[in-house]
Amino acid sequence: MKIVAFAGGVGGAKLADGLAQIIKPQDLTIVVNTGDDFEYLGLSISPDLDTVCYTLAGLSNPETGWGRIGDTFNILEIVHQLGGPSWFHLGDQDIATQLERTRLLRAGRSLSQITHDFCKVWSVQCSVIPMTNQVVRTFVDTFEYGELAFQEYFVHHHCEPIVKGFRFDGIENALPTPGLLDACERADAVVFCPSNPWVSIDPILAIPDIRLAITKKCTVAVSPLVNGRAVKGPAAKMFLEMGIQPSASAIVQHYYNLLSGFILDTSDLDLSSELKIPFMATDILMKTNDDRQHLAKDVLHLIENL
Amino acid sequence: MKIVAFAGGVGGAKLADGLAQIIKPQDLTIVVNTGDDFEYLGLSISPDLDTVCYTLAGLSNPETGWGRIGDTFNILEIVHQLGGPSWFHLGDQDIATQLERTRLLRAGRSLSQITHDFCKVWSVQCSVIPMTNQVVRTFVDTFEYGELAFQEYFVHHHCEPIVKGFRFDGIENALPTPGLLDACERADAVVFCPSNPWVSIDPILAIPDIRLAITKKCTVAVSPLVNGRAVKGPAAKMFLEMGIQPSASAIVQHYYNLLSGFILDTSDLDLSSELKIPFMATDILMKTNDDRQHLAKDVLHLIENL
Repeated sequence: MKIVAFAGGVGGAKLADGLAQIIKPQDLTIVVNTGDDFEYLGLSISPDLDTVCYTLAGLSNPETGWGRIGDTFNILEIVHQLGGPSWFHLGDQDIATQLERTRLLRAGRSLSQITHDFCKVWSVQCSVIPMTNQVVRTFVDTFEYGELAFQEYFVHHHCEPIVKGFRFDGIENALPTPGLLDACERADAVVFCPSNPWVSIDPILAIPDIRLAITKKCTVAVSPLVNGRAVKGPAAKMFLEMGIQPSASAIVQHYYNLLSGFILDTSDLDLSSELKIPFMATDILMKTNDDRQHLAKDVLHLIENL
Repeated sequence: MKIVAFAGGVGGAKLADGLAQIIKPQDLTIVVNTGDDFEYLGLSISPDLDTVCYTLAGLSNPETGWGRIGDTFNILEIVHQLGGPSWFHLGDQDIATQLERTRLLRAGRSLSQITHDFCKVWSVQCSVIPMTNQVVRTFVDTFEYGELAFQEYFVHHHCEPIVKGFRFDGIENALPTPGLLDACERADAVVFCPSNPWVSIDPILAIPDIRLAITKKCTVAVSPLVNGRAVKGPAAKMFLEMGIQPSASAIVQHYYNLLSGFILDTSDLDLSSELKIPFMATDILMKTNDDRQHLAKDVLHLIENL
């Protein structure tokens, strides 16, 4: 089965890893949100891309979900001593990735080429591509501070400001990464990984050609919520602040018309009557590698039965 | 006594450190060559400035003379794995300095302000200033490869190409760093540290206003050669390739008309008749901290007796 999966950071990366363990590399394409990308210390940081790549490469820090396993934080400590910014936590080894990516971007290499080359070094065999090679930046509109760049909101303000809306700056000029539309066309199904709908999956869907490419595909989403709560991150809080009760059915309604099937947590089974599309209830928490594989298999089973 | 010292990298830094240990901080200004500065991995590197600052701060690696003590090289190793350049050895902690300097330069801060602020953090009390805030780049003209950027010559080619000449690109637009001319005017003497005359001291002297400011000062140079050999680096090789026998008197002639006094190694005492200016012979090798202090004291003694 040929699968295209859309993913944000930690949760998305885990399911992507599960899928990569049960699908042939040439049949799996992971499309990663780049709306969270930003400049920091003069470095071009792609947090979701790195989380997905590190996770697939077995290099990710299992405790944090982001960054590299066994990494140290000496450089940021010294930068801080010198009076520089240290609000975004970049490990020393992680900085090496950022340095080389930034160097290559400045030399004119595209983000997708760079990601492809890094994945080769890291022995990541499936295809991992950024949603676009153009610059797209997610802004979070808040009551307290007006519009905040995503990382300002996410890291600097700890997701505390109350959200009014979202804007994906640059999206009007963003083209799908070369090969992305082809992969969608060839795919038997598109999977929305359990990532934040507002700021991880929506930026990908906001690229007009991508949305168009998947409207007639079999599309399955895995809920990022368990019992109305986000497994990680501000998804549930965002739903509430946007005036929507966070729940499995809220996710389905969020992706209005796009989904052919849905996977929710067994604890949310009582809400299944509201879904109005085919669904499967399973344990969606991915604590172990077995959990990742099981959830990936469940996703494929659901797709097979649609 | 108020001293201005001109310095390049390792040898210059050692004498600067000796001077800093015996002169009141407010009476000592170290002017550092920036002709070796270059861009690497997107970072703005100032090798001589860092060597001088690290040495004065007690942070330098005593084995190499450059870089930071106890530094690790993980980042460059990862950059290399990713296919990036690794020919210039930057330690992990050293990269923190480069990251923050580069960030501040891009934000419009001058190199001298940045150096001042870093020195504050590092508890360097005397004044350390780059020769200029403008970009000057040393090029080495070679028989084999034509003009090479300094670090290409120095690190990439291990100083092997035969030298035809030197060019300090940008020197015509380089202004002395604010405060530099004042410091020269107030100084009782100017000291040329035992640094490479061709590529460490000459770039400083090539800034017209600086040369002018010191022509009537008491100026003392410490030989970078012992027994016709450079203590470190390609100085002697450069003299030979420029058609000059490397020797203490060659150094004096190199600084033609500028020097009021000269310090040479006791092993070169047989050449002293050729010097034709006041001199002192002493042990100029600085292996220990005591050596640094002794040489600094000798420099001051010579100045006092001129």
